[in-house]
Amino acid sequence: MQKDQLFLGIDGGGSKCKAILTDQHNTVLGTGISGPANPVYGMGQAQHSITESASLALSNAKLPNIGLIDIIAGVGLAGVNLPHVHEEMMKWQSPFKSMYLTTDILIACLGAHNDQDGAVIICGTGSCGFSNVNNSTKIVGAHGFPQGDKGSGAWFGLKAVEAVLLSLDEMAPATAITQYIFQFLNVSNADELATIVAGKPASFFAQLAHTIFCAVEAKDDVAIAIVSEGAGYIGKMAKILSNSGPPRISLIGGLAESITPYLDQNIQQQLGPAKFPPEMGAVFLARQEATVR
Amino acid sequence: MQKDQLFLGIDGGGSKCKAILTDQHNTVLGTGISGPANPVYGMGQAQHSITESASLALSNAKLPNIGLIDIIAGVGLAGVNLPHVHEEMMKWQSPFKSMYLTTDILIACLGAHNDQDGAVIICGTGSCGFSNVNNSTKIVGAHGFPQGDKGSGAWFGLKAVEAVLLSLDEMAPATAITQYIFQFLNVSNADELATIVAGKPASFFAQLAHTIFCAVEAKDDVAIAIVSEGAGYIGKMAKILSNSGPPRISLIGGLAESITPYLDQNIQQQLGPAKFPPEMGAVFLARQEATVR
Repeated sequence: MQKDQLFLGIDGGGSKCKAILTDQHNTVLGTGISGPANPVYGMGQAQHSITESASLALSNAKLPNIGLIDIIAGVGLAGVNLPHVHEEMMKWQSPFKSMYLTTDILIACLGAHNDQDGAVIICGTGSCGFSNVNNSTKIVGAHGFPQGDKGSGAWFGLKAVEAVLLSLDEMAPATAITQYIFQFLNVSNADELATIVAGKPASFFAQLAHTIFCAVEAKDDVAIAIVSEGAGYIGKMAKILSNSGPPRISLIGGLAESITPYLDQNIQQQLGPAKFPPEMGAVFLARQEATVR
Repeated sequence: MQKDQLFLGIDGGGSKCKAILTDQHNTVLGTGISGPANPVYGMGQAQHSITESASLALSNAKLPNIGLIDIIAGVGLAGVNLPHVHEEMMKWQSPFKSMYLTTDILIACLGAHNDQDGAVIICGTGSCGFSNVNNSTKIVGAHGFPQGDKGSGAWFGLKAVEAVLLSLDEMAPATAITQYIFQFLNVSNADELATIVAGKPASFFAQLAHTIFCAVEAKDDVAIAIVSEGAGYIGKMAKILSNSGPPRISLIGGLAESITPYLDQNIQQQLGPAKFPPEMGAVFLARQEATVR
């Protein structure tokens, strides 16, 4: 490995792909963001987004004599926990010098704990827990929406819609969530609400999660019960992960900040902030793997 | 209206379209079944299925000198509760002498109570309640999956998958549902289960509902709690509908028989069997409307 070897870290998910270009000392030289990169929903799209985000990061770094072919890439992708997806992606003739592929969850964990052992709970559109201790990993959740992903943005959004529809039918108590969700979606009755949410993906429901937290602020009992259930799940996940003995646990993802105040005090005290973002975890992976080989 | 006027009743839903051909005295002359007829998922497909099921019913009746153009049709369709869907379907140049269009729920209610006032709770792939008393109607539920349809087949199926995934993560108690669902779907772990159910429609989840009732037979606490929640919802729907004062209430649909034993005794006693199927309700509608005009 050359002294001035550059590394690229890629974090690819269902809505966007982030790339970070670094030198040997983790100094960030450039960054790039492109579109969806979950290979489950399109292998070609994912490969296109990886290449595009990498090219953007390289342009951003303004290094005229360097090409993607000179760079060692670590790539963390949603969906590659499925063996056939991993296998298919490994067949790709990538534009990089070499490419190391793993899950988006592992790179998030490596990033959060600066390439050391630790655990992460990801609470964004979906939810999952992951620990990486003594070269042994454990995963909890990550089963997708609506069958899994409890405590996630999509789950909170679905619970919000359910609660509003039940209350409008007088099958459950009235809730302040109704006013927030009606306003956000610009609808005014149950039929309009049911029509607008019909067949929508997890990412749509995740946009509705904030209505629950607004209603909790307004001391709405229905919203308080939902947050209590979601936070209870995330807290239990923290307990299960701590059984593996991780030195640190981080709660990350778009809903992390909203949900933290509702976790038990002793769980809140166990949590520490992520030291680096997932794409830096992918850089750590690339350097580890390139050094070993 | 001629004395020997024939009537056609159509019950069109998301998976199939049923047609029944009758004479003036409700004597069934022929029946036909075709494919999907929910116009929300394809206006052309719905119109094709209606025509096909009607043609099959006419062939089945063996009436060589009669064509669809001689017949007055009553058509009850899922989805036409949405104004734009109803409007679009009314533009159709149907092959019938005349066509009267309403919801699948109203024809189910007319059929169940032999063209008299009454209420129905439909518990199949989806769930809803409907009362038709003194020319005033009321609907409860019918909001779709996964945001509504509590207590329905799809809802029980989703709850089954949720419970199994939580238990395999040790985030919830072990449940006998696991063995039934693994066997039915021929999977053997959480990843395989999550993969096979990913992105599946309500009709897929509804096929899993029976695993809950099998587990209840085996005295599984998790399954008992789910059935109790679902039956509680259906029972509450019956109470709300009975406030409208319907002379009769029927519980119909694919899950009616399974769920009835778990309803409160006093609710079970209020329920009476459907006198005729929904497609006969569509015949009643056609005759009513043709007589009025």
